[in-house]
Amino acid sequence: MKKAVVGIDIGGTFTKFGIVDKEGNCYFEGSVPTQSEEVEHVENYVENLSSKIKSVINNFPELEICGLGIGVPNGNYYKGTIEHAANLKWKGIVPLADLFRKHFSLPVVLTNDANAAAIGEMVYGGAKKMRDFIVITLGTGLGSGIVSNGHLIYGHDGFAGELGHITVYPEGRTCGCGRKGCLETYVSATGIKRTVFELLASSMDDSPLRNITFNELTAEIIAKNAQQGDTIALKAFDFTAKILGQKLADAVAFTSPEAIFLFGGLAKAGELILNPTRKYFEESLLPVYRNKIQILLSEMTEVNAAVMGAGALVWNEILTNNP
Amino acid sequence: MKKAVVGIDIGGTFTKFGIVDKEGNCYFEGSVPTQSEEVEHVENYVENLSSKIKSVINNFPELEICGLGIGVPNGNYYKGTIEHAANLKWKGIVPLADLFRKHFSLPVVLTNDANAAAIGEMVYGGAKKMRDFIVITLGTGLGSGIVSNGHLIYGHDGFAGELGHITVYPEGRTCGCGRKGCLETYVSATGIKRTVFELLASSMDDSPLRNITFNELTAEIIAKNAQQGDTIALKAFDFTAKILGQKLADAVAFTSPEAIFLFGGLAKAGELILNPTRKYFEESLLPVYRNKIQILLSEMTEVNAAVMGAGALVWNEILTNNP
Repeated sequence: MKKAVVGIDIGGTFTKFGIVDKEGNCYFEGSVPTQSEEVEHVENYVENLSSKIKSVINNFPELEICGLGIGVPNGNYYKGTIEHAANLKWKGIVPLADLFRKHFSLPVVLTNDANAAAIGEMVYGGAKKMRDFIVITLGTGLGSGIVSNGHLIYGHDGFAGELGHITVYPEGRTCGCGRKGCLETYVSATGIKRTVFELLASSMDDSPLRNITFNELTAEIIAKNAQQGDTIALKAFDFTAKILGQKLADAVAFTSPEAIFLFGGLAKAGELILNPTRKYFEESLLPVYRNKIQILLSEMTEVNAAVMGAGALVWNEILTNNP
Repeated sequence: MKKAVVGIDIGGTFTKFGIVDKEGNCYFEGSVPTQSEEVEHVENYVENLSSKIKSVINNFPELEICGLGIGVPNGNYYKGTIEHAANLKWKGIVPLADLFRKHFSLPVVLTNDANAAAIGEMVYGGAKKMRDFIVITLGTGLGSGIVSNGHLIYGHDGFAGELGHITVYPEGRTCGCGRKGCLETYVSATGIKRTVFELLASSMDDSPLRNITFNELTAEIIAKNAQQGDTIALKAFDFTAKILGQKLADAVAFTSPEAIFLFGGLAKAGELILNPTRKYFEESLLPVYRNKIQILLSEMTEVNAAVMGAGALVWNEILTNNP
């Protein structure tokens, strides 16, 4: 029988799930609301999702399901818990992996969404042959997964790799974490919006962006305007790339990776973000690291990247234990 | 026969070497000049040191020597080379491990001095039972060794863990690496001297430090004056601790260690540096990390700490391969 795994990617609004094999073939992908009125309690959510997954599995009798991989904000790999997730309704510490284990007698592996993206890149994407790399996810916030010597760095408590919260300016922009000047307040889809609004305030350049509200503005709109030569949008990308390039140079001084992959909404801007980031990165690097570390776009660009990343957790676990 | 290893710590002026067993008993310690007129060429240096080591080994027939461990600035673990060391006369890339292998048919393990300090802390010091910790060496510069999941992080090129060169102020103090504002220009024995001189210039406070030249001033003198209540010296420690605390908080967002150990000249100031560093560190941490990460003084305070750290490299290698 062909081996396959279940990948579950839990976002604030929707949970995507699917079945994927070792080669990255996706047999099914679906989604359920993460938090609706009917599934207010996490037990109901897990029960509801588990029964959906079971009926999907029954449709593929040719597959041997080897485990469930879950990517979720604030996921703790060691404990299989979600801990104090700001963007989820479930408060406190939620023993999510154990709840799924009540419904499946299969291995359940859980980690945060950015770590899942890194494992996805290693199993299916551009990091297949790499042992030292970093994945930076640029969405609403900035997440990161750091792989060193072939292993994801979880740290002593399971919460390593929070590069979104290294400090750029100690007295800078207010961050959702309660502190100030965190990297993700500058470098993320939200961060570049904040930069655009700072530039609209500080400069007098004419720009189509002056007709868009903060709530309407997206990283995609900024990218489109930059491509059309709008100076505000171009300056916003340059500023974002400068901070990202400088902080990635610092990241290299920690784990000296072979490559750094950019993933997520803001990474879709492609060369607009990649080229200036590479320039500032090289300028900022310690000489010993220059001209040998690649900054690349993630190869996990499929619509089902998140589910594949979550599923890859299980493959990685199986590979690690039975190489 | 009792097993033991040779530890070699190569500094800019002197090379210390010794014989140490698994329990940290030191059977011998001696030193030779690293670079004198007679040993200008590295081949002569290795030959001279090897013959000294051999005659010492002959004095301990009861010991079975298992290998040589070498700690050296800019040491590359993967290649066994010294690469472009600013503080050594030997230029370019020096195949040091291979040179020693010509004289000994034993395993030779080489890494940079801060990595050796971290392995020493793990084998002999305060990190014996830890799998995730960081050692910061505060000497002329700032070095670091990062251990994650029980393994030292070497990176793809062997040069990971250069925290002395993460950037504090992009337009800050000139650094020996050719860039500006690196952490070690603020936080190191030299960094705190520079801070004292800035404070002597910017303030009008009376201070005994106004009678000491830059070249005469040491971290020890600054510590002594701080202990006697000198405001300039106290402010210098506070400023140094603030930058160190903030940057260690960033370091936690990378590898989430259980503890961070301070080692070397500036760490000898004890509570003077430890207390304010802990305060600024806790203030700067992301909430998820607060009140669970220790900042400690290294337990490798013996006079032969460097030799023990270098020797520990071999024990770590033996332990890793034959657990």
